[in-house]
Amino acid sequence: MSSTALLTDRYELTMVQAALRSGAGHRRAVFEVFARRLPKGRRYGVVAGTARLLDAIADFRFDGDDLEWLVAEGIVDEPTARWLANFRFTGNIDGYAEGDVFFPGSPILVVESSFAEAVLLETLVLSILNHDCAVAAAASRMTLAAGDRPCLEMGGRRTHEHAAVAAARAAYLAGFAATSNLEAGRRYGIPTVGTSAHAFTLVHDSEEAAFRAQLTALGTATTLLVDTYDVPTAVRTAIRLAGAELGAVRIDSGDLVTEARAVRAQLDELGATKTRIIVTGDLDEYAIAALSAAPVDGYGVGTAVVTGSGAPTANLVYKLVARAGESGCWRAVQKASPGKIGHGGRKWAFRRFDRRGIAEAEVIWSEAAPDHYRGGERPPLDDAHRPLLVPLIRDGEIVGREPLDAARRRHREVRNTLPPAALHLQPGDPALPTVFAHEPPNR
Amino acid sequence: MSSTALLTDRYELTMVQAALRSGAGHRRAVFEVFARRLPKGRRYGVVAGTARLLDAIADFRFDGDDLEWLVAEGIVDEPTARWLANFRFTGNIDGYAEGDVFFPGSPILVVESSFAEAVLLETLVLSILNHDCAVAAAASRMTLAAGDRPCLEMGGRRTHEHAAVAAARAAYLAGFAATSNLEAGRRYGIPTVGTSAHAFTLVHDSEEAAFRAQLTALGTATTLLVDTYDVPTAVRTAIRLAGAELGAVRIDSGDLVTEARAVRAQLDELGATKTRIIVTGDLDEYAIAALSAAPVDGYGVGTAVVTGSGAPTANLVYKLVARAGESGCWRAVQKASPGKIGHGGRKWAFRRFDRRGIAEAEVIWSEAAPDHYRGGERPPLDDAHRPLLVPLIRDGEIVGREPLDAARRRHREVRNTLPPAALHLQPGDPALPTVFAHEPPNR
Repeated sequence: MSSTALLTDRYELTMVQAALRSGAGHRRAVFEVFARRLPKGRRYGVVAGTARLLDAIADFRFDGDDLEWLVAEGIVDEPTARWLANFRFTGNIDGYAEGDVFFPGSPILVVESSFAEAVLLETLVLSILNHDCAVAAAASRMTLAAGDRPCLEMGGRRTHEHAAVAAARAAYLAGFAATSNLEAGRRYGIPTVGTSAHAFTLVHDSEEAAFRAQLTALGTATTLLVDTYDVPTAVRTAIRLAGAELGAVRIDSGDLVTEARAVRAQLDELGATKTRIIVTGDLDEYAIAALSAAPVDGYGVGTAVVTGSGAPTANLVYKLVARAGESGCWRAVQKASPGKIGHGGRKWAFRRFDRRGIAEAEVIWSEAAPDHYRGGERPPLDDAHRPLLVPLIRDGEIVGREPLDAARRRHREVRNTLPPAALHLQPGDPALPTVFAHEPPNR
Repeated sequence: MSSTALLTDRYELTMVQAALRSGAGHRRAVFEVFARRLPKGRRYGVVAGTARLLDAIADFRFDGDDLEWLVAEGIVDEPTARWLANFRFTGNIDGYAEGDVFFPGSPILVVESSFAEAVLLETLVLSILNHDCAVAAAASRMTLAAGDRPCLEMGGRRTHEHAAVAAARAAYLAGFAATSNLEAGRRYGIPTVGTSAHAFTLVHDSEEAAFRAQLTALGTATTLLVDTYDVPTAVRTAIRLAGAELGAVRIDSGDLVTEARAVRAQLDELGATKTRIIVTGDLDEYAIAALSAAPVDGYGVGTAVVTGSGAPTANLVYKLVARAGESGCWRAVQKASPGKIGHGGRKWAFRRFDRRGIAEAEVIWSEAAPDHYRGGERPPLDDAHRPLLVPLIRDGEIVGREPLDAARRRHREVRNTLPPAALHLQPGDPALPTVFAHEPPNR
């Protein structure tokens, strides 16, 4: 993978330059990533993008061309360029495990290093997490609405060509079964799907010729698209050519509830009782829920999932919350922000559970004056509180890599521990209250 | 640049395989890109991404690794893989010039080649155009609202890290003055901006120490961020340290109208009459318009511009509209789409102007039975009709490259020819009616 070092905002580099000059660039600092609020009406956020971020941080090195351009443009001076040339992140990063859920104020990523190293990562961290968390949150609502039926991500054409690959990954993490995106299939091992579009039928002399061509090339387990002309005619032709072994038909237009019922009846009448029905066409979580009583076997989702279903970014911010002074003593810091949630100090995050194992609250313990702060330590716990931060990078080395399927499994498990209100599609408050504490929860 | 060949949907490849097998893959075909509707209430769309698309098509080649993976996964068979190995696009592409505006039904891209070649490009074409057009359309509304004041794109952290680079480009094309994104600066020559964030102030022992550090490193022409603690105190400190030569101050919170007025009065009182005021913080076109009477010298825009200000994708589709049969005769085709705009046949597009040079209508002439169709020809015109399609690719060779500034200039000029309703921010109908004609406009 090529360098990610210029995927950042100019001010990260001008801050590095000014802070190296003043000496503050070498101070130890803690930055945290959190959302002040969830998108309107959402019950929970979903952590996604962590593994992509770890790779991007490893690739965040300035090469000679980068540096030459930065100096020629007057963005940084020569001493700063020399510092950047040697840059690699040497600090510690903890974060919520990928696939976990989060709530307003949850410190989903905690970066601890020199100020200069940590500030440099701000834009990259936020770009990746804001995008991937937004898609995963929408996808999670869709897989909830779909229940046991598979959701298929098909939205790559509705978003930036590289965002599409990340979106497919985030959707899979949140329970989607497959993607149409081939690069996502190759890069992340996600199952891929897709057979044909209306153009394929239209380029042939007849629908029958098109179906015959597809069955010859792809076999009878394929999915035939039946709404190019007249649906009942297409279904009849499909079964006549493929027999009852036809894998599936796809319906992409019309009132999908009505269409699915009619097609199911027709397929059954033709003896194709195992042939599945896939529906596509501007589906979102509400449309999926509305189809729950219809005889549908899978949902192809496009625009809504890759654009976060109304919330294309996750509102995550990256804030300095603590830093050491010249003496080495830590100090909690925060901007004066009327009306904004902001809590200075390094945070520890826990989820509190009731005796049945249902989550009750997100407990954030803030070290207001963390003179005794040590990276990686956390207070002891009672059984009711599960710690949420896991180590991702230690002294610059990635320690938090895991297979995508682990994050996917975690998301399903964590979602099952949320209270019933979390599973409501309609707008409402966050499913868990965020409780800010000044003492660790078990003291 | 690396291959873009897997940035596509699986079904493009399965269609190629089936169509090569049936023979239909070799038929000449015309696909068109258009939007059935603009995002709700929008007055016009903006064509953006064309130059990125031309590069991506040039890079759309399958390498050995791609093909090995595709065969191993069972996505294509060996004969198809051999065809893909030799693939390069050899057809013709025309399109609306980048920076031009468009309306429902406008054929902003017309791809003419064999079916197999053209269908292969669908996902890539749509990803790039849907993303870039969405950002440019939002950006254009913002630069309209801002009038002569510069808009600065700062939203990279709110979108996918690579989408951020394309978003900066699309915003610049639509009149933004600069971007915070360094990769966009390097890749596209867009001016970059940015100086410091709140963290920079917070990591220093005092605001004064931070300002001093920034002025030392970046000079007095820099922009100081004045809302970390108390704004009037910060402004006083800033001018005390920098003098009246201070370039600008930035305000990122509070009621920006009130804050800007107070800061302007204070700066003037301190003699810093030339020091500019930049405002940032969740701005969109409406917030920019609301600040028009406030003493503001520039707008930093983040989330709203990179996410299309409520419309993160441009609703563009890629449809087969004509194809040759075995005899070589062309035939208009279209899916049966109740309730959807769809017009078979190859289109020619014109904009009709009144005598004052104000646009009146988007005239789309459709060749319903284009037996006499020849790629690149277009009917003769009268003076009132400006043709909108320009050649982009001829026989696989890119002929439509132009500097980004040409597209940027074009957008400003074209926007000036739109009727007054186009410039209204409030929701309404498209500014021009789309007129579908079966005769060329001057016959």
